[in-house]
Amino acid sequence: MDALKKGWFSELCPLWPGMCLSLEVEEIIHSEKSKYQDIMVLKTKSHGRVLTLDGIIQCTEADEFSYQEMISFLPLCSHPCPKKVLIIGGGDGGVAREVAKHPDVETIIQCEIDERVVELSRKYLPFMASGFDNPKLTLHIGDGFEFMGKHQKEFDVIITDSSDPVGPAEALFEESYFRLMKAALRDGGIICSQAENIWAGSGLDIASRVYKFCQTEFSSAAYGYCLVPTYPTGQIGFVLGGLNPKTNFKEPLRILSKEEQSQMDLRYYSPEIHRCAFVLPRFAKKVMDGEA
Amino acid sequence: MDALKKGWFSELCPLWPGMCLSLEVEEIIHSEKSKYQDIMVLKTKSHGRVLTLDGIIQCTEADEFSYQEMISFLPLCSHPCPKKVLIIGGGDGGVAREVAKHPDVETIIQCEIDERVVELSRKYLPFMASGFDNPKLTLHIGDGFEFMGKHQKEFDVIITDSSDPVGPAEALFEESYFRLMKAALRDGGIICSQAENIWAGSGLDIASRVYKFCQTEFSSAAYGYCLVPTYPTGQIGFVLGGLNPKTNFKEPLRILSKEEQSQMDLRYYSPEIHRCAFVLPRFAKKVMDGEA
Repeated sequence: MDALKKGWFSELCPLWPGMCLSLEVEEIIHSEKSKYQDIMVLKTKSHGRVLTLDGIIQCTEADEFSYQEMISFLPLCSHPCPKKVLIIGGGDGGVAREVAKHPDVETIIQCEIDERVVELSRKYLPFMASGFDNPKLTLHIGDGFEFMGKHQKEFDVIITDSSDPVGPAEALFEESYFRLMKAALRDGGIICSQAENIWAGSGLDIASRVYKFCQTEFSSAAYGYCLVPTYPTGQIGFVLGGLNPKTNFKEPLRILSKEEQSQMDLRYYSPEIHRCAFVLPRFAKKVMDGEA
Repeated sequence: MDALKKGWFSELCPLWPGMCLSLEVEEIIHSEKSKYQDIMVLKTKSHGRVLTLDGIIQCTEADEFSYQEMISFLPLCSHPCPKKVLIIGGGDGGVAREVAKHPDVETIIQCEIDERVVELSRKYLPFMASGFDNPKLTLHIGDGFEFMGKHQKEFDVIITDSSDPVGPAEALFEESYFRLMKAALRDGGIICSQAENIWAGSGLDIASRVYKFCQTEFSSAAYGYCLVPTYPTGQIGFVLGGLNPKTNFKEPLRILSKEEQSQMDLRYYSPEIHRCAFVLPRFAKKVMDGEA
């Protein structure tokens, strides 16, 4: 953990070589090697509690809300009536917490491969794991590929909240995975997957490759992003794909009123932020859309 | 320099305690203590050449363009005809490079306090210092307060490209400075100042304080931001103030065509990005505008 200095957690990763974010640690709350990965829960000086998997920051108490809200409400508010939602990954519970807030959502199935992430989040990260207590949710511990193979044409929205494409989540960035998601969607269904960022190392290459899968497999597709200071380069992106060619991800179908936004305790997402999430800087637009 | 690990530059600062970005260094190209500050030029493994002042990253070859374009074109494209522009600070030349691109700009006066930043940028950072070679520009080495005291009602746009409010730039974040800028503007004039970020440590407090000065002194005001991965939290903001109450910073008055954007070699700015720069996440909007 002390790659750069004693008492600091330093995030070194071949996906973003030559740069490194460090957080000052007050306490290592928990550290273990599960069947799938190294899991750590830290208490940091500036960002509250932090979950890391294989040495990479997954979420911090200080800024997790932007990611969880955006990966949830970008697809949910692009769907006319998202009744049944599948979450792949998301073992910290943060995405479930947000999805459950949407008024149309009736049923949430979550499929997470690593039970220990769920157990440790329940114990040490209750501000996210509260999502698991929602009566709309059924948690399934298992492999997302296997699960979707058995569930065809079932979901209105599928959200993949994965770690980066090194280690256990690598397969979630392949085209075969997008085909599986497509088959698990009901008519008019929508998927939304974590899809790296536009700046760091191989980030834009991965993002554009995954965006291409979406464009190939789905009738409508888009790449959007949000700010998360503790992710590399301070932002992270999402690819969205829809079976309905009329789906326009860039204009929310469901406009949450200011009252709804407040009731739902949204701290990042708004309809205005939704629209802006898909407006890329020229250099990124050039790579993603082939034009600036 | 090796606060966190030998061979890495680590940016520790009391403005953002408990977090730290590090860049792997291939070569320290230059290091000196000028009359005003410690200046370093580094060659990094991932971000090309980097300029630091008092141990804080000012710009990297890899991502400087977004800051320079946004601090220039947000005010320039909000003005009906920005003929005469004053740049305070900006000793690396990057803002001058961008301002000179705008078709309406005829005269640029730049006032930088530290001659050594200009000289070292000319020598080691030609990709930014090219701004100094533009025939529209006159460079004045001196104090911005003193300079503006002698120049009343002279400029259409004033851009303050300063370092953070610790050390030599501290006074540029005070209300008296905004009054001086106001007095140096022609009728309908516009100012744009670097104004910290919405996430890190005291960032949002500083941003909202400076934004209040703008609201008090000017007839129209706004706070916008852009992505810069090597600034703390990956983004940085700007406050804009205008003498004309009809100025609407959120909707560019001058819409640069796609052809103009390409001719001007813009890699970040577009009219669409301009509009989105002012759309804040709910938590930040609440602090800045007192409502979400």
